[in-house]
Amino acid sequence: MTNQKVVLAYSGGLDTSVAIKWLQDQGYSVVACCLDVGEGKDLDFIKEKALQVGAVSSYVLDVKEEFAIEYALVALQAHALYEGKYPLVSALSRPLIAKKLVEIAEKEAAVAVAHGCTGKGNDQVRFEVAIHALNPELKVLAPVREWRWSREEEIEYAKQNGIPIPINLDSPYSIDQNLWGRSNECGILEDPWAAPPEDAYELTTGLEYTPESPDYVEIEFEQGVPVKLNGKSYPLAQLILELNILAGKHGVGRIDHVENRLVGIKSREVYECPGAMTLIKAHKELEDLTLVKEVAHFKPIIEKKLTEVIYEALWFSPLTSALLAFLKDTQKFVTGTVRVKLFKGHAIVEGRKSPYSLYDEKLATYTKEDEFDHSAAVGFIQLYGLPTKVQSMVQNKKVTV
Amino acid sequence: MTNQKVVLAYSGGLDTSVAIKWLQDQGYSVVACCLDVGEGKDLDFIKEKALQVGAVSSYVLDVKEEFAIEYALVALQAHALYEGKYPLVSALSRPLIAKKLVEIAEKEAAVAVAHGCTGKGNDQVRFEVAIHALNPELKVLAPVREWRWSREEEIEYAKQNGIPIPINLDSPYSIDQNLWGRSNECGILEDPWAAPPEDAYELTTGLEYTPESPDYVEIEFEQGVPVKLNGKSYPLAQLILELNILAGKHGVGRIDHVENRLVGIKSREVYECPGAMTLIKAHKELEDLTLVKEVAHFKPIIEKKLTEVIYEALWFSPLTSALLAFLKDTQKFVTGTVRVKLFKGHAIVEGRKSPYSLYDEKLATYTKEDEFDHSAAVGFIQLYGLPTKVQSMVQNKKVTV
Amino acid sequence: MTNQKVVLAYSGGLDTSVAIKWLQDQGYSVVACCLDVGEGKDLDFIKEKALQVGAVSSYVLDVKEEFAIEYALVALQAHALYEGKYPLVSALSRPLIAKKLVEIAEKEAAVAVAHGCTGKGNDQVRFEVAIHALNPELKVLAPVREWRWSREEEIEYAKQNGIPIPINLDSPYSIDQNLWGRSNECGILEDPWAAPPEDAYELTTGLEYTPESPDYVEIEFEQGVPVKLNGKSYPLAQLILELNILAGKHGVGRIDHVENRLVGIKSREVYECPGAMTLIKAHKELEDLTLVKEVAHFKPIIEKKLTEVIYEALWFSPLTSALLAFLKDTQKFVTGTVRVKLFKGHAIVEGRKSPYSLYDEKLATYTKEDEFDHSAAVGFIQLYGLPTKVQSMVQNKKVTV
Amino acid sequence: MTNQKVVLAYSGGLDTSVAIKWLQDQGYSVVACCLDVGEGKDLDFIKEKALQVGAVSSYVLDVKEEFAIEYALVALQAHALYEGKYPLVSALSRPLIAKKLVEIAEKEAAVAVAHGCTGKGNDQVRFEVAIHALNPELKVLAPVREWRWSREEEIEYAKQNGIPIPINLDSPYSIDQNLWGRSNECGILEDPWAAPPEDAYELTTGLEYTPESPDYVEIEFEQGVPVKLNGKSYPLAQLILELNILAGKHGVGRIDHVENRLVGIKSREVYECPGAMTLIKAHKELEDLTLVKEVAHFKPIIEKKLTEVIYEALWFSPLTSALLAFLKDTQKFVTGTVRVKLFKGHAIVEGRKSPYSLYDEKLATYTKEDEFDHSAAVGFIQLYGLPTKVQSMVQNKKVTV
Repeated sequence: MTNQKVVLAYSGGLDTSVAIKWLQDQGYSVVACCLDVGEGKDLDFIKEKALQVGAVSSYVLDVKEEFAIEYALVALQAHALYEGKYPLVSALSRPLIAKKLVEIAEKEAAVAVAHGCTGKGNDQVRFEVAIHALNPELKVLAPVREWRWSREEEIEYAKQNGIPIPINLDSPYSIDQNLWGRSNECGILEDPWAAPPEDAYELTTGLEYTPESPDYVEIEFEQGVPVKLNGKSYPLAQLILELNILAGKHGVGRIDHVENRLVGIKSREVYECPGAMTLIKAHKELEDLTLVKEVAHFKPIIEKKLTEVIYEALWFSPLTSALLAFLKDTQKFVTGTVRVKLFKGHAIVEGRKSPYSLYDEKLATYTKEDEFDHSAAVGFIQLYGLPTKVQSMVQNKKVTV
Repeated sequence: MTNQKVVLAYSGGLDTSVAIKWLQDQGYSVVACCLDVGEGKDLDFIKEKALQVGAVSSYVLDVKEEFAIEYALVALQAHALYEGKYPLVSALSRPLIAKKLVEIAEKEAAVAVAHGCTGKGNDQVRFEVAIHALNPELKVLAPVREWRWSREEEIEYAKQNGIPIPINLDSPYSIDQNLWGRSNECGILEDPWAAPPEDAYELTTGLEYTPESPDYVEIEFEQGVPVKLNGKSYPLAQLILELNILAGKHGVGRIDHVENRLVGIKSREVYECPGAMTLIKAHKELEDLTLVKEVAHFKPIIEKKLTEVIYEALWFSPLTSALLAFLKDTQKFVTGTVRVKLFKGHAIVEGRKSPYSLYDEKLATYTKEDEFDHSAAVGFIQLYGLPTKVQSMVQNKKVTV
Repeated sequence: MTNQKVVLAYSGGLDTSVAIKWLQDQGYSVVACCLDVGEGKDLDFIKEKALQVGAVSSYVLDVKEEFAIEYALVALQAHALYEGKYPLVSALSRPLIAKKLVEIAEKEAAVAVAHGCTGKGNDQVRFEVAIHALNPELKVLAPVREWRWSREEEIEYAKQNGIPIPINLDSPYSIDQNLWGRSNECGILEDPWAAPPEDAYELTTGLEYTPESPDYVEIEFEQGVPVKLNGKSYPLAQLILELNILAGKHGVGRIDHVENRLVGIKSREVYECPGAMTLIKAHKELEDLTLVKEVAHFKPIIEKKLTEVIYEALWFSPLTSALLAFLKDTQKFVTGTVRVKLFKGHAIVEGRKSPYSLYDEKLATYTKEDEFDHSAAVGFIQLYGLPTKVQSMVQNKKVTV
Repeated sequence: MTNQKVVLAYSGGLDTSVAIKWLQDQGYSVVACCLDVGEGKDLDFIKEKALQVGAVSSYVLDVKEEFAIEYALVALQAHALYEGKYPLVSALSRPLIAKKLVEIAEKEAAVAVAHGCTGKGNDQVRFEVAIHALNPELKVLAPVREWRWSREEEIEYAKQNGIPIPINLDSPYSIDQNLWGRSNECGILEDPWAAPPEDAYELTTGLEYTPESPDYVEIEFEQGVPVKLNGKSYPLAQLILELNILAGKHGVGRIDHVENRLVGIKSREVYECPGAMTLIKAHKELEDLTLVKEVAHFKPIIEKKLTEVIYEALWFSPLTSALLAFLKDTQKFVTGTVRVKLFKGHAIVEGRKSPYSLYDEKLATYTKEDEFDHSAAVGFIQLYGLPTKVQSMVQNKKVTV
C-alpha cells in the first residue's frame, strides 16, 4: 500500500530538508515544491537536494512574473505599507505559494500540504488560511511548529538522517526575500535600542558608501502599471529587479520597524525594498497629479484596509476582491512619466507629467495668466463656514465649558 | 467723529502695507497686528513700519511657545501630513493668528478684522472661518482679494501713497514660514515637471552639500511631548527651532508636493520642515513601541481626519476638540527615548526604548529564552480562518464567477 | 437671427412655467424637458403645458426603469441612508435628470441648461455639478435663484404673462417624489418640535389606520438585485412601485429627519419610502446571511461614503465609480429569499435563506450535532488576548493615570 | 493545608452550580459571586444556593446603577448597534462582571477566576481578555468548556452530587439579560428561515397584542445623559428599567439577527431592548439637532469602532479609553427634550428641542423670514464643483473607457 502524499513548501534550507524526513516518519510520501518569487534561488540545486533528502518528486517553479503582476502590482497601486512603514514583502508571496501548493496537491492527489513555519510568526497563519480558502479539504501540516526541537536537537536529527547541514547555519538572522523586498529578523535586531549592523543588509549600499553623484530614472506608467524605465519597456518582474539594483546601489529603501504581528506580539525587523519604495513614491506622485481630490482623499482608507487584509492572511477573502475592484477602478488615468533622482538613500521625485494631469497651470498660477474666479471665494467661504458660525453663535455663547 | 477700527494681520510686506492705506481709504482706522510664530521676524522694525505707513496702533506678539504647545504639538502627535506628504505648516498658524486678531479686535472695540490673502488660496478660508467661529459678529475684510490689482497697479498705488517698496520684490516666490516649517510656491515651481531650483530652499542644505559625517541626537518624550534633546531640557518652541538647525544642516525635511487645495484647484509647492519631520519620525517610532496594536491601527484614522480638518479651516470646530480628546488619551504611555541619526537628508531612527515598551524580548525572541506558547497558534488559526474556510466551502464550490 | 437655446428641467408647476417666460425675456428659446422618475406624472398634460406657455419644443421621457436600475439599485445595495436615516430620494434622481438634460442640450445644440432650484437647497448643487461633469461647456441658468421674487411677485408676473396658476398653490409644502420615495418640507414642518400633520403624508397609511392583519411578502434577490415578489418576476421599477403600494398600505417607511444640507444649514423634512425601506431591510438581512464577516464589517464604510458622495452632488465623480466597483463585487453571492411581514408600520424580516448562506447550523448549534471545535477556543483566546495582557503587565502596573 | 481559592461567576443555574462541585473536585475552594445587572434576579435565593451547593462563601452584588452609568450610557451615546442591528446587551455586562470578579479575587487572595461559558461563544473571550487586562496573574478556568459533557451527563453528575435541577431545564432557549436588553438563542431560532415563536420573547408585547392607543413620553437629556422621564428625575438604571416597561408594553425593541461571532461562526439570536432602542432613537434625534455637521458625519466612525471593540472583548483596551474620550467630548451640548410616541412597536420621535439647537428657522425657512444669502450659492457651487469640472475637461474627453 502506498503512503498518502503531502506537498511541502521546500526552500532548500535545513528546516524544510529535515521536514522531508520527519514527514516520512509520519508515514507520508513527500512532494517538494520550491518557488522562485524573485529571490534569485538556484532552482536546479534545490530541486536535486529535495530528491536527495528523500522527496518522491520535486517541483521548482519560476513564478516571478505572476508574482509581479498579481501581487506586487497590487501592493504598488495601493501604496501598501504595513503600519505606514514597509511594503509587506513576505505577506505578498505567501498567498501565491499557497496557491501553487494547492494546485500541485490537487494534481498529485495529495491529502495534505506542509509548510516550514514556526508557531509565532505570521506566515503560518497566511499559509493555512490561504490553503483552506483554496481547498478546504486539504490537511495542513506544520512540522517545525510541531516538533519544537532546539537548534541542537534538529541538527542531531539531521546528522542521524544524512541531511546536509548548510554552511551558513550560524547566521544569527532569519531572512525572507522576494522581488518586492527582503526582510530580516533575529540576532542583535531583537534589541530595539540597537542599531542594525551593516551585515543585516544585502540589497542596499550603506549610506556611507553610496555614490557621490546621483542617477536619474524616468518611470513611465500606463493606467497605474510601470511599463518603462528610461524609455525602455520591461516585463514587470524584470522592471522591479532592475530598479532593485539601480536604487539599491544608492542605498534606497532600508526600513527598520517594530511591528504588531497577527499572533499578538511585537517584533522588530529590518527591510530592504529599493525597487518597491522607489515605485511607490513615483506612483503616488503621479496619482497626486491625476486623481481628483475626493478619490485622493478616500483611496488611503482602501489602501490601509487592503494592507491590513493582506498582512492578516486574508488575501483570498471576498473582501480583498472587493477592495481590488475599487483599486483598479482608480487607475484608469494614472498614466504618465515620473522623473526620479536616486541619491544618498533617497528616491526623490523631481518632476511628473501626464496627459491626464488635473493640475491646471492657468488655474493655479499667480501670474496674470490666472483664470481662477477670485470673487467666487466670497460665496464659497460664506456657505462653507456657515455651520461653524451658527454653532459658535448658539453654543459658544451660552456655555463655558 | 472717529472712524471704526479694523484689526489687520500685518506682515510688514508690500501687500499688507498697501492694505493699511487702502483700508483707510475705505474709512477705517487700522490697528496693525504682527505675530511671530517662529519665522524669525524683526518685530521692532515691523511695529514701526506699520505706524509709519499709517496704522493708528501696532501690536507685535511673540507667540512661538503658544504656537508650539497648542498647535505644532498636535500636528506632531497626530503625525499630521497633508495627503501623506507635508506637515501642514501654514494651516497650523492661521487659527492662532485669527485668535489673536479677534482678541485684539475685542480689546480695541474694532468692528472688523482684515487679512492679506488672495481669493484662490486656503488661508482666506482658514482666517474667515476661524474668525467667525471665535466671534461671529466681527466683519472680515480681504483687501487684496477685493482690489484685484496687478503687481504694477499695486506698486503705483504704493508709490503715490508713500509706502516703501521692499527690495526683494522681484523674488518669484511666495513664502510662508513658522517653526513647524516653510512653504514656497510660484515661479518655476508652477511647472510640476521642473525640479525645484536650489534657491527655492532656505532652511535646509542641499543634499550635495551636506556634511560627510552624521550627527546623532537623542530625543526624549514624556507622554508624547518632546522634552529633551541630547539630555538637555528645552521649552518646546526652542526645541523645535534647535532641531530645525541640526536637521536642516543635514538636509532633512525637503518636500515637493502637488496638492489639492480647499478651493478646488491643485497647486504645487515645496516645503522645508527639518525639525517637524525629524520629530514626527521619532514620535511614530516611540508609538510603535508603546501603543497596543488596536490603538496603533485605529489612530491613523483619527490622524487623517484631524489633518484634513486642520487643513480645511476647521480648527475651531467641535470636531477638532473631540479628535484632540482621542489623541491626547493615546499619549499617556508615549514616554521614552529615540536615537536619531541625521545624515544625508535622512532622520534615521536607529534605536528606541521606553519604560512602557510593549515589545517583549522574551515573547519575540527566536532564542531559547522564548516564552511564547507555540501550540496556541493551532487553535488561533483554526478559529481565525474559520469564516474564510466556510465561505470557500459554500460559495467557491457553487459558482464560477 | 434665431435665439440661443436653453434646455429647462420642466415640472409643469408654477416656478418652471414662469421660468419659460423669464428665460424668453433673457433672449433664449426654451426647450422644455420633463422626466418621469416614478412620481406618476401626467406626461401628456405637462408636454402640452410647456408648449402652451411658450417652449419651442417639449420633451417628456419615462425613465423609470433606467432610474431603478442605475440609481435606486445602487442605493439599495449600499443601504444608503443619509445620516443613518432616510434613503436619499431627490439626491438619486438629480444626476439622471442632469444627464438627460445634457443629452437633449447636445442634440438640440443648446448653449445652456436651466433648473428651477432656489439658492438654499442641495439640488442646485447637484444639478450644476452634474451638468458640468457631463459637459463642462454648457452654461447653467437658475432663474428662480436669480429672480428672487416673493410668491406674490411671481404670481403677478404669471398673470401678466398668461401663465396658468395651479390650483394647489397654497399648499404649505414643498414636495419631491420618485419611485424611491417622497420628500416634504416647509410649512409646520419647519418647527422641529411639532409633530408632522397627517396631511404631510401621501404614500403611507397613518399607523392608526393600518390594517389589523399583516401581509407577507417573499422577496427574491439574485446577486443583490430584487427580481421577484411572492414568486412573480417584475422589472425593477415596477417591483419597487408594487412594494410602495403593499408596504405603504401598512404604513411602512415614514421618516422624520433634521438634516445637514450641503449648503451649510440644517433643515427638517419628512419622507415616505415604503418600498425602499422594505427592500433595504430585506437586502441587509440577506447580506447578513451571505457575506463573510470582514466584508460585512467593512462594507458600511463604503456605504457611508457612497451615501455622502451621492448626497453631496458627486454622482459623476470618479470616486462614485470606484465605490460602485467595490459595491458590485460584494453582491456576487447575495442571492436568496427573504420573507417579510408587513404590519403596523413595520417591515419585519421573519426568515431568510440562500444557497450561499454562510450560516452553518452544524457549527452554530448547541445541540449534539455540534461540529465546532471547542478546544480551539483556548489557543485563540490566548493569542487574541496577548496584546491586552502584555499592555496591562507593562503599563497598568507602572502608572496611575 | 487549605485549598487555593477560585472566584466563580455564579448565576444560580445548573451549569454554574455543577461548576462549584467540579471545581472542588479539582481541588479548589469556590467563592461564588453573583451580580445583578438588571435582570431582576432573586439575589438572596442565589446567595443561599451557592452556599448550599458547596461554595465557601457567596457574594451577591447589585451593580445596576454602575452598569447603567459606566456601560449602558456609553452604548447609548455611541448608538452602539452591533452590525447595525442590536444594542450589544451581553457584551456590555461582561467587562463589569469581570471587574467585580477580579476585585473579589484580589480581596479573597484567590488564584483563579472561573466562568460558565462554553467554547463557541463570545463571552468566554470577553471574560478572559477582561480578566487578564485587569490582573494578568490570575488564572482563568472554564469548567463547562473543559468538561464537555452532554446535557444528560451533566444532569447525572448533578444528581450524584446533590445539586438541585432547575425546573425550567427543558426550555429550548439560552437567555442572557441585563437592563440594556435580553438575548435569546437556540431551539427553533437556529433555523434562520423560521420566524421566532412568541414564547421566545418576554420583555415585549407581540405586535398583535399591543394597546390601541399610544403613550407619549418626554425624555430630557443633559449633556447626553437621559435624566428625566415625563418631567420626573430618575437614576439612570431606574430610568432605563422604567422605559423597558413603558416601551415593552407597546412592543418596541424586538430584533432578530444573524450575526458574526468573534470566534468565527454566524449565529442567529433574537433580542428585546425596548428601553435601549427608545433611548438610542431619542438621543440620535437630539444629536441631529445639536451636533455640527462634521461631528455628525464623523462620529459614526467612532461609534462603529467602539461597538466592534466592545463586542470583540476589548473593553479594557486603551483603544476603548481613547474612543470614549472622543465620545464624551461630543456630548457637551446634547441637552434638550425629545418627545416620543410609543405605539405599535414604534418609538417615534415626533418633536425635539434644545437650548443648543443648531437648527435655525430663519436660515431654514422658505417664508419671507428667510435670512439665508442665496447669492452666496453661486460662488460656492463654482468652487465646490471645480475639481469635477476640470476632471471632466481633462479626462473624460480624452479616453473612452
